[in-house]
Amino acid sequence: MKIFNKITDMKAEIKKLKSEGKSVGFVPTMGFLHEGHMSLVRESVSNNDVTVTSIFVNPTQFGPTEDLAAYPRDFERDCAMLDKNGADIIFHPEPSEIYGEGFCTKVELSGITEVLCGISRPVHFAGVATVVTKLFNIVNPDRAYFGSKDYQQLQVIRRMVKDLNMDVEVVGMPIIREADGLAMSSRNVYLGAPERRSALALSGSFKVVEDLLKQGVTDSKTIKEKIAEFILSHPHTRIDYIETVHPESLVSVDSAEADFVVALAVYVGKARLIDNRYFEVNHA
Amino acid sequence: MKIFNKITDMKAEIKKLKSEGKSVGFVPTMGFLHEGHMSLVRESVSNNDVTVTSIFVNPTQFGPTEDLAAYPRDFERDCAMLDKNGADIIFHPEPSEIYGEGFCTKVELSGITEVLCGISRPVHFAGVATVVTKLFNIVNPDRAYFGSKDYQQLQVIRRMVKDLNMDVEVVGMPIIREADGLAMSSRNVYLGAPERRSALALSGSFKVVEDLLKQGVTDSKTIKEKIAEFILSHPHTRIDYIETVHPESLVSVDSAEADFVVALAVYVGKARLIDNRYFEVNHA
Repeated sequence: MKIFNKITDMKAEIKKLKSEGKSVGFVPTMGFLHEGHMSLVRESVSNNDVTVTSIFVNPTQFGPTEDLAAYPRDFERDCAMLDKNGADIIFHPEPSEIYGEGFCTKVELSGITEVLCGISRPVHFAGVATVVTKLFNIVNPDRAYFGSKDYQQLQVIRRMVKDLNMDVEVVGMPIIREADGLAMSSRNVYLGAPERRSALALSGSFKVVEDLLKQGVTDSKTIKEKIAEFILSHPHTRIDYIETVHPESLVSVDSAEADFVVALAVYVGKARLIDNRYFEVNHA
Repeated sequence: MKIFNKITDMKAEIKKLKSEGKSVGFVPTMGFLHEGHMSLVRESVSNNDVTVTSIFVNPTQFGPTEDLAAYPRDFERDCAMLDKNGADIIFHPEPSEIYGEGFCTKVELSGITEVLCGISRPVHFAGVATVVTKLFNIVNPDRAYFGSKDYQQLQVIRRMVKDLNMDVEVVGMPIIREADGLAMSSRNVYLGAPERRSALALSGSFKVVEDLLKQGVTDSKTIKEKIAEFILSHPHTRIDYIETVHPESLVSVDSAEADFVVALAVYVGKARLIDNRYFEVNHA
C-alpha cells in the first residue's frame, strides 16, 4: 500500500495508472475509520483496478464552534484497516498542502445546502463541495464512494457532479450500523455509556415511523411530532432537526404520499449525531 | 470541422480522441469572433493535436442591466473563421443544455474578483468561473487559451485552476489590436464613428503612463489622475475605473516601484470597453 502526502506525487501516480488503462475507485474520508468506511473500500476494490482512500480532516467544513481540534484521529490504525481491506493507495495531505498561499476559490450549492444540516452548519457544505472538487481533480477517479449516513452530503455531491459535468460516477452505499442499530460514525467515540444507550433514539425513530405508516398516518407534522416525543424520552438528547424531505431535492414534504426520507440530527450529550432512512411509499 | 451541441456528444468525442492519445487545446469564446480569438486558435492548433472552440454566450456572467440580449452573434461567420484558422471542433450548446433543471452550483473566488470589473459587475466572475469549470470538465483540455484583454478574467482562471487542482495548462496570449491601437473586442460593433475615434483614449492612456514613467513619476495617484484627464479629453467617454494593480493578486498598488498593470474600464457611448497594459519596472 502506497501513501502520498503531496498533490504532485499523487497526481503523478494517477497519471501513470491511467496511462496503463487502470480504473480508479476513490473513497474520500476524514479518517478514524470504521466498518462504514470499510464497506465503501471493499465495494471500490471489487469494482476498480486501484482503490485510493484519502484521509484528510478538512478544516473548511467545520464551523468556528465545532469539533475540528477534537475530531478523532488514528492514522496508524486507519492504515492497518485499509491495508487489510485491500486499498492500494492512501492520500494523506496536510491542510497547508490542500489550502496553499492565496487560496480563495469556493464551490457552493444553493437550496439543497440550506436545509437540514445546512441550517446549523452554514459553512459546512461549501467546505465539503470545495474539498471534494479538489480531491476529484487530484485523484481523477472513475468512481467515488460515499456512505448514506451523510445523506445530504451524498445528494450535494451528486448534484455538484451533475451541475459541473464532472466525469465521475458517484456511488452511494447503505448505512452500516452497530448490532443494536446505531449508525456507525467516527463521532460515536464522544459517547459515554449512558449516552451510548440514548443514541439508539435515532435509529429507533424509524420504527416509530414504520408503525405510523402502517396505521395509515401520512401527515408529516404528526410523524415529526411522534419522532420528537420518542427521541426526547431518552435522557441526554437535544434535537437539532427532525425532517421529512424529498429524496433528491431535500425539500420538506408535508405528507408521506411519495417516497421520502426521514432525516435527523440529534445532540446526545456533546456528540451531534445524524441518521436517516429512505421510506418507499407503496401505492399498489 | 465538427460541431457539437450536446454535452454527451462532446464528451464522447473527447473520450475517443484521448483514447487515441491526442492532445486537446481549448479556446472558450462567446462567439462573434475576431482576430484576437483567431490568435488563440492558431496558437492552440500549433501546440495540440486537436483544437476545440466553444461558442456560448453565457447568461450567468451578465448582470441584469447588461447587454446579454444585445450581445452580437454570427454563428455562420464564426464557423467560417474557425474553419479557415484550423479549428477542428466547435462546441455550441444552448443555455438550457448548460444549465439544466435544478442547476444550483457556483464556483466563486473572493478578493481577486472583488476589484476592477468585479465592482461594477458583481456576478460576472462567478458566472465565468462556473461556466469555465463546466467547459473544462466537458472538453477536458490539455491546454486552454485566454486573451489578455480580459486581464482580470485570465488571472481569475489561473487562480481557480491552481486552487481547484485542475489538470489544464492556462495559456495567456497578448492583446490583439486594430492598426490604430484599439484592443479588439466583440463589443466594438457598438461604437459609432465618433465613439470609435474616442475609443482610442484607452490604448492612448498607456503612452501617457510611459511618458510619466520616463519623467520619473512613480506615484500611482498621479498616474491615474493623468490617465483620467487624458481619457476625459475625448468626447463620449465615462470612466468606470482606472487602476494600477499587482499583476497577479490585482491588489491596488500605490507606487510603480515593481511590475504593475494599468487596467481600465471606460464607457464610450453605450459600449463598456476594457484595456490594460503590463509595465515592467526596470531597477537596473
